[in-house]
Amino acid sequence: AVLHRAPGVPLFEVPENFALVCPGVYRGAFPQSKNLSFLKKLRLRSVLTLVPEELPDVLLTFYEENNIKLFQFGVPGNKEPFVDIPEDKIAEALTVLLDSSSHPIFVHCNKGKHRTGCLIGCLRKIQNWSLTSICNEYRHYADPKARALDQQFIELFDISKVYYNVTRKPAWL
Amino acid sequence: AVLHRAPGVPLFEVPENFALVCPGVYRGAFPQSKNLSFLKKLRLRSVLTLVPEELPDVLLTFYEENNIKLFQFGVPGNKEPFVDIPEDKIAEALTVLLDSSSHPIFVHCNKGKHRTGCLIGCLRKIQNWSLTSICNEYRHYADPKARALDQQFIELFDISKVYYNVTRKPAWL
Repeated sequence: AVLHRAPGVPLFEVPENFALVCPGVYRGAFPQSKNLSFLKKLRLRSVLTLVPEELPDVLLTFYEENNIKLFQFGVPGNKEPFVDIPEDKIAEALTVLLDSSSHPIFVHCNKGKHRTGCLIGCLRKIQNWSLTSICNEYRHYADPKARALDQQFIELFDISKVYYNVTRKPAWL
Repeated sequence: AVLHRAPGVPLFEVPENFALVCPGVYRGAFPQSKNLSFLKKLRLRSVLTLVPEELPDVLLTFYEENNIKLFQFGVPGNKEPFVDIPEDKIAEALTVLLDSSSHPIFVHCNKGKHRTGCLIGCLRKIQNWSLTSICNEYRHYADPKARALDQQFIELFDISKVYYNVTRKPAWL
């Protein structure tokens, strides 16, 4: 068959910094109203947010209407000295990502750069990526605002603190 | 269960500019020898290369040993004036990407920026992404070497020239 765009079909507006991480896991910035039709097309089963604030009603309603389960692991950014990303929250969030029954899942923070970058960096560590590869990817999304503290967090993160359910682990683990 | 890294397991070195495009489609830079263990883990069914040069023996052997089908659509870069990316080759390459029997597939050129970026940009157009979203993604991989000509190529590309097999189209089409 030949492709053609049906006239009048609205175009998809993709969240900033959107990408696939591995099969079943997406990442990006905080979703805006204009991104919802795109998110709907992904047929998400869950969303994992790393912002501590309450989410806007328009999002909560969208998740409810589309049977999307919301996981919230509020984490402060690694911005100030002495404001550390809590290791235990990242470990819990990883447990969700390693559970294929929650896939497809969309992970976001505010910009999809730092907190999301830390979480995905730790996921890459679990996938046995070299630190060079991990930090290349981290900077790919965070530049020109990459943070040394985030990269250090990933390097020092102890993956033995992460629990997962053997019967529901994804194929890529 | 708890995660732990088996001692002595070698780490994966990921190709530069590596990412998932959509389920079943990966992109990145020209694979190096050190990336082969990582590529092997992806259990690729095919590789689509956009470089016109003959591939090194080490790659050809690796593809043969792992039953990876190689598609080569040699395309010159959009570097010089009057050296255009041939639309028909991009259309043929898209036909391969839209055939789920070739998935998982890894697409690469030299840097994974320009030729790969043009091809994936056209794929996004087929997926009905807005031009803003497409160019954001293009620049994400090409910056700081993004080319206006590439973005113009994507904008002007005529998706009605792309054929696909209805029975083998991927779920995301």
